[in-house]
Amino acid sequence: MSQTALFQLGTGLETSTARKEDFAIATSAAMAEERDDHFVVRNGVRCAGAHLIIDLYDCEKLADLDHIEAALRRCVEASGATLLHIHLHHFEPNGGVSGVAVLAESHISIHSWPENGYAALDVFMCGNADPDACVPVLREAFKPQRVDVNVILRGQSV
Amino acid sequence: MSQTALFQLGTGLETSTARKEDFAIATSAAMAEERDDHFVVRNGVRCAGAHLIIDLYDCEKLADLDHIEAALRRCVEASGATLLHIHLHHFEPNGGVSGVAVLAESHISIHSWPENGYAALDVFMCGNADPDACVPVLREAFKPQRVDVNVILRGQSV
Repeated sequence: MSQTALFQLGTGLETSTARKEDFAIATSAAMAEERDDHFVVRNGVRCAGAHLIIDLYDCEKLADLDHIEAALRRCVEASGATLLHIHLHHFEPNGGVSGVAVLAESHISIHSWPENGYAALDVFMCGNADPDACVPVLREAFKPQRVDVNVILRGQSV
Repeated sequence: MSQTALFQLGTGLETSTARKEDFAIATSAAMAEERDDHFVVRNGVRCAGAHLIIDLYDCEKLADLDHIEAALRRCVEASGATLLHIHLHHFEPNGGVSGVAVLAESHISIHSWPENGYAALDVFMCGNADPDACVPVLREAFKPQRVDVNVILRGQSV
């Protein structure tokens, strides 16, 4: 990853409002109809997709499996992605949850440490889906006091 | 993510040989027996776990679902992780594969674009597992001409 591939998006509750970008489709319309993992252009860079590394601090409801699954499903819906498979696991004794949603456009994952109020997520989306749309959903679901979002543009050299 | 959280590990076939680091357990031995997602110390930094962002270029066998599943399982074994769930999806018409392995120590994901010879993976592991051990497994499985590995230390502020 080159330094230019990593966009530091800052911290704090207002982060997501400043980071909307245009997605342009790098492939033909015909190809877009057949598959959802086509390459995109983001910030002028052609890439396989945008990979958001999301850290949520001082959250609530991180041990609630049903709540976390519902949040993941709302992320999929908000981003316009297509859910292919979802799986969550509840750990004992700390109540942490690991969950993954496999998408036609790649995946979303979450791992929570409720005893620390911390959750680590990644949202990787190709094609027409809008991964940024997940951030406000996560803010609403887990009420984090701090959110870090970093974007990696995958496959720039392809 | 601070800049110090991102270690550019270079490219080329010899990358993985230079990047072995010591993992030290940041939690008590008693806690380690109960769960596999405890925080670790890596490069002197206490964190929830190491998240490897792995890009494989000019690969082979990226449309072979069974081969990809076997490679993921070998990654889990090599890293000393515990597999909880695995799911792979075969896309048409390009033959690309999306796969996720949910671990007691977090997850591994792969998304392949066989028409471009490109695969995007991430390996997130907490606890005692060694995510670096996945890299030589992936080199052997997919024969990439170029491998980029970047490490993000998640949850440093917790």
